[in-house]
This record gives sequence, C-alpha cells and structure tokens, in this order.
Amino acid sequence: MKKEQLYSGKAKTIYKTDDPKKLVVEFRDSLTAFDGKKKSEAARKGYYNAQISRKIFEMLEKEGIKTHYIDMVSDTEMLVDAVEIVLIEVIPRNIAAGSITRKYPIKEGTVFKKPVVVLDYKSDEYSDPMLNEDIAVAMGVATYEEIAQIRSMALKINDILVKYLDSKGFLLPDFKLEFGRKDGEIVLADEISCDTCRLWDKSTGQSMDKDIFRFDKGDLSKAYEEVARRIVPEIFK
Amino acid sequence: MKKEQLYSGKAKTIYKTDDPKKLVVEFRDSLTAFDGKKKSEAARKGYYNAQISRKIFEMLEKEGIKTHYIDMVSDTEMLVDAVEIVLIEVIPRNIAAGSITRKYPIKEGTVFKKPVVVLDYKSDEYSDPMLNEDIAVAMGVATYEEIAQIRSMALKINDILVKYLDSKGFLLPDFKLEFGRKDGEIVLADEISCDTCRLWDKSTGQSMDKDIFRFDKGDLSKAYEEVARRIVPEIFK
Ligand SMILES: Nc1ncnc2c1ncn2[C@@H]1O[C@H](COP(=O)(O)OP(=O)(O)O)[C@@H](O)[C@H]1O
Ligand SMILES: Nc1ncnc2c1ncn2[C@@H]1O[C@H](COP(=O)(O)OP(=O)(O)O)[C@@H](O)[C@H]1O
Ligand SMILES: [Mg+2]
Ligand SMILES: [Mg+2]
Repeated sequence: MKKEQLYSGKAKTIYKTDDPKKLVVEFRDSLTAFDGKKKSEAARKGYYNAQISRKIFEMLEKEGIKTHYIDMVSDTEMLVDAVEIVLIEVIPRNIAAGSITRKYPIKEGTVFKKPVVVLDYKSDEYSDPMLNEDIAVAMGVATYEEIAQIRSMALKINDILVKYLDSKGFLLPDFKLEFGRKDGEIVLADEISCDTCRLWDKSTGQSMDKDIFRFDKGDLSKAYEEVARRIVPEIFK
Repeated sequence: MKKEQLYSGKAKTIYKTDDPKKLVVEFRDSLTAFDGKKKSEAARKGYYNAQISRKIFEMLEKEGIKTHYIDMVSDTEMLVDAVEIVLIEVIPRNIAAGSITRKYPIKEGTVFKKPVVVLDYKSDEYSDPMLNEDIAVAMGVATYEEIAQIRSMALKINDILVKYLDSKGFLLPDFKLEFGRKDGEIVLADEISCDTCRLWDKSTGQSMDKDIFRFDKGDLSKAYEEVARRIVPEIFK
C-alpha cells in the first residue's frame, strides 16, 4: 500500500499510497531542535510518538474534533487523509514556558487565566516567525474565516487535552498544532506527541517531552516510555 | 509653566507643568535607530517634527479623533494631556517596507489589499517584540476591549492620514502610533512625524523619513524640511 516517499521532514516521513487521497506518516527516531541546529536520535521515540498520537487522535475524534487520522498500518506508521497543510503553527499556552518567557517579561510557570494562543508562520527558512491574522491573510496563508475556525478548534482541543492529560498525571504548559484543508474543511493534522507538547509530571514537575533533548535534562527514551505507559498502556501488554 | 523634567526618551523630553493633568513634550534633534545602537543629531529635526505633529493632531481632532494635543508652548514644545501610555506600539501598514519584508516572504513595495496592523510590546529592554491580543492581555498591558478600540482608532487614523498625505504628495507605507488612557478613555498620544512614519515621495519614491538616517540615504534635515514645507507651509512665511 505504501508507495514512494513524498517528503521527509525533521521527525517524520510522508509516503504516497495507492489512494491519492491518503498518505502514510512514518514516525522516525530523529530529533531536531533550535531551528535544526541540534540533532540526534532516540531509540523507540518514533514508536512511542506514533502510538501516543494515535491514541490522542482517536480520543479527539470521539469528542467531535475532525482529524486526518484513519488507522495505523504498522507500529510507527499512520494512515492519514492527505490534506493541504495550513502553514500556521498554532500554539495554545496554559502555563508560561519556553520562548514566551524569553521574548516577554513573563516568568516561567505563570499560569494564564485563559489560554494564550500564538500563531507562527511554519517556515524553516524564516525560522517560524510569529504571525497575526492580518499578516497571515496578507501572505495568503489562510483566510480570516479559516483562522477563526482554527483558533476555535485549537481552544476546544486544548480544553479536552488539558483534562485528559491531567487524568494521566500531566500538566500541559503548551503544545503545537497543525491544521489542513480537506475537501474545503479544516481538520487537525500532523501529530500530538511528546515532540509537540510540553508535558510536566504533575507531582514532580519534571519535563517529559522534547525539552529533555533541548536542554540535556536526561534520558529521553525513558521519559517518552513513561508517557506512553500512562497514555497507551495497552502497547506494553 | 514648564517645570521639572519627568522623562527623557530617545527623541523627546517630557516635563511636568503646574497642572498635574498636563505635560510639555519637547521635540529634540536627537536621532536613534536599531534599538538605540545607531545615534545622531540632525539640525531642526525637533522643530520640523513638532510642527508636523501639531498639524496632524489638529487635523485628526477635526476628523473626530481624540488626541492628547492641547497647544504649542514654543516652536518645539507641545502642551499635552498627561496620559497613562498603553505599552503597545501600533503599526498600520499599507505598503510592505522595513521589518515585515525581512521577517516574512513579503516583498518591499507590496501593496496590502487592506491595512495590516501589527502590535509590538513597547519595551526597549525586550526590543519591542511583536504581540498578539492574548499575550498583551496576559501581560496586563491592556484589556481586550482596549485593544479592540485601539485597533479601530488606528484603522480610522490610517484612512484619514493616507488621504491627507496623498494630497501633499506622499505615500504612507507604514507608521507607528501610541495611545494612552485619560480619565478611562483611550486617546492618541506621542507624535506623528517623519520619525514615526514611513513617507515616500509620490513621484520619486524617495524616503522622506527616518530611513534616511537608518540607511544613510542622504540629508535628513533637508528631507524633513521638504515634508514640513508641504504639511506646515505657514511656518516658512
Ligand atoms: N495529513 C497530512 N497531509 C499532508 N501533509 C501532512 C499531513 N500531516 C502532516 N503533514 C506534514 O508532513 C510533515 C511531517 O513531517 P515533519 O518531520 O514533522 O516535518 P517538518 O520538518 O516540516 O515539521 C510536516 O511538514 C507536516 O506539515
Ligand atoms: N501624553 C503623554 N503622557 C505621558 N507620556 C507620554 C505622552 N505622550 C507620549 N508619552 C511618552 O513620552 C515618551 C516620549 O519620548 P520618546 O523620546 O519618544 O521616548 P521613547 O524613547 O520611550 O520612545 C514616550 O515614552 C511616550 O510613550
Ligand atoms: Mg513537524
Ligand atoms: Mg518614542
């Protein structure tokens, strides 16, 4: 079913299938951070992220969120609807961490009264600069209507995820979403995993996400495994 | 009437007056750019900017825009209402120029179909990072209601200014506004001058603004004088 490679990104590879409307996303073990300046590999990372993403997409679908997820075709490969990716990285933030604490006088750990949504232009060449609606529309990246819909979907997903992850013992300071166009409709695409979420253990406060790699905070594979144990316990049986 | 100095900024000095609700703004000849890294002086710059600002504030008041402007107290000194400055630099953009052409794939000279409004956090310490509504509100810089009002005033001012400056032979690619709170109301504050507007001569396309200083494009005092000749011809009689 999987055919030639369409695109190989920083963490995943996309393949065509027999059906032009469907793609296979392979989750790889490669890691990059800081605009691709830092690179590495972590054993089983692709596997854990694929399984966590699958579980979260299934859960979101049940809650009424349309996603690109169709099925798994192997442990690390996901069958998805081919979409036209909207070149906006949508970042809902619940607790201040990372770039927002460096760019502005906002202390790490500040709990936002309501989620702060940041839109970045998805462009390695331009280093993902922050957007606003007017700039995104002027660049032809999306329409005002699409951005309003993406924003409202992101807030709904944030609400669902915060509660879901709380029940698994995690805080969700922030995470990154990508959306795509499928038959004129906006659907959630890409992945939701330890690479794209900040996850803090609720009791210890420790990072259980890509910050372990970014800031050399310990054994990434072990942390991702622990996240997988809580979110997809079935794969350990 | 003018009393002790309250604040000396990059281009203007603010003085208290006998009336705690009023301040004097003195327009100086000093010039800075690139986060204060480039500095200079230009003869009569303060005078031209003060007079241009005065004329534009008077014109906007007639068009129904509330401003801090009260009166001139000398050639370079303006009496204004003391306001609590909202720490947002509001930048309406009509034609792409400057930072927006470096941060994004938008070519210099691109005419925007509708004005693009950018909000920056007014902070020398943080180098004026771009804001969005959520971040501004989370930092306590303004409320959503205030930002909506500031945005709508900025668009109205932009409309008026584009037409006004067109009649004087200028294009207005972009400009920077500051607003303040006065008795619970949002009013236009600071200045509107060759330091805060990109002004291109309509026939030659030449910069007649602070870009002359930023990019060493010629005689700044002469260009500002030419702008003053078109906007405040009365001061040359
Ligand atoms: N359903 C989909 N259809 C088409 N492209 C997708 C879909 N889901 C994700 N993508 C894109 O595939 C790529 C995934 O690989 P990744 O390694 O994350 O790449 P990148 O380095 O661009 O982030 C991303 O560019 C993402 O936008
Ligand atoms: N009506 C006003 N009341 C109080 N402060 C004002 C008023 N108008 C402008 N200001 C502030 O006064 C300062 C003007 O001086 P300027 O040299 O432009 O300073 P800066 O280096 O901060 O830009 C600015 O900080 C501006 O926000
Ligand atoms: Mg990616
Ligand atoms: Mg200033």
